[in-house]
Amino acid sequence: MIKYPTKKSVYQEKKISTKNRGMRFEALIDETNAFYRLNHEAVVHKKPTPIQIVNVDYPKRTSAKITEAYYKTPSTTDYNGVVKGRYIDFDVKESRSKSSFPLNNIHPHQIDHLKAVHAHGGIAFILVYFSVYDEVFFISYPLLEKYLKRSEKGRQSITYEELSREAILIKPSYRPTIPYLNAIEHYLKK
Amino acid sequence: MIKYPTKKSVYQEKKISTKNRGMRFEALIDETNAFYRLNHEAVVHKKPTPIQIVNVDYPKRTSAKITEAYYKTPSTTDYNGVVKGRYIDFDVKESRSKSSFPLNNIHPHQIDHLKAVHAHGGIAFILVYFSVYDEVFFISYPLLEKYLKRSEKGRQSITYEELSREAILIKPSYRPTIPYLNAIEHYLKK
Repeated sequence: MIKYPTKKSVYQEKKISTKNRGMRFEALIDETNAFYRLNHEAVVHKKPTPIQIVNVDYPKRTSAKITEAYYKTPSTTDYNGVVKGRYIDFDVKESRSKSSFPLNNIHPHQIDHLKAVHAHGGIAFILVYFSVYDEVFFISYPLLEKYLKRSEKGRQSITYEELSREAILIKPSYRPTIPYLNAIEHYLKK
Repeated sequence: MIKYPTKKSVYQEKKISTKNRGMRFEALIDETNAFYRLNHEAVVHKKPTPIQIVNVDYPKRTSAKITEAYYKTPSTTDYNGVVKGRYIDFDVKESRSKSSFPLNNIHPHQIDHLKAVHAHGGIAFILVYFSVYDEVFFISYPLLEKYLKRSEKGRQSITYEELSREAILIKPSYRPTIPYLNAIEHYLKK
């Protein structure tokens, strides 16, 4: 008896929109970093959330159970790592707006940190995800600084329209999900 | 009436041995990093300890109290940052022995991480503090790899004597406490 294939065995690369995956943007970045590490393209990790530990129990000699702790404000951004010897450092943000990204979404300590990284020759940037359009913008620190300076006496946000013109667009893809290394390459060529 | 000075007002830079400061080596590195950041020599931070959070209470709307959590095994080293655009990544270890540093003090995930960083052109190393001598050794990843390969069929530790010959010695100082950037510079020149 010949067994006919009941389903197509050919691997099909599906074009899945990140919109419908029900994942938060940070999870997509973590997925992307895992892909880059596995493919030896970059070593980038998310930093753990800083926690202030107040009390720890030792029910067994070998195990420690934290029974009282609090979230601390991070003093840096969430992501950093190395690409071809160079230091990269960034934070990721999500906007559900159709028209703009409010600058107060970026904490002052993150701005100070990105500024210091940029001053030391690192590649400092933020990634802003517009979920409505399923589009990500790579905003380098120098561009971000321009918007921040403007906000001192004017508009408190960056419009989608100006990001389309001035930032680098990253189209979510399949492997990796958010190909931000291409944006870095593009930024360094400019 | 003339007020005579009762104590010497001239600033004296004291030569204090790290041995007598009652600080653990990690604290000395944190102090050094703070010094380097303030003096715009490098941006290096310690990563927070990764914690698995199981339960969180919200006694007030604005505050979160973690009531059950556990320590997780870190997947990377504790320190990373940027020096003149280059990515640096390291872990710090302490030895109370007079004669050697046991290699099993370095966790396999840390070795894998340092190897990946080195492969991507980052500066990967460990700092080993011999508290008996108040001396620190900068061990680059390639040198560490040599010792690790040897340990596959022989000695499970690195002797103080061979570190004196092969690693880069860092003498604890006053400002900064552990001047490891000098060791990096020396390493890059070789």
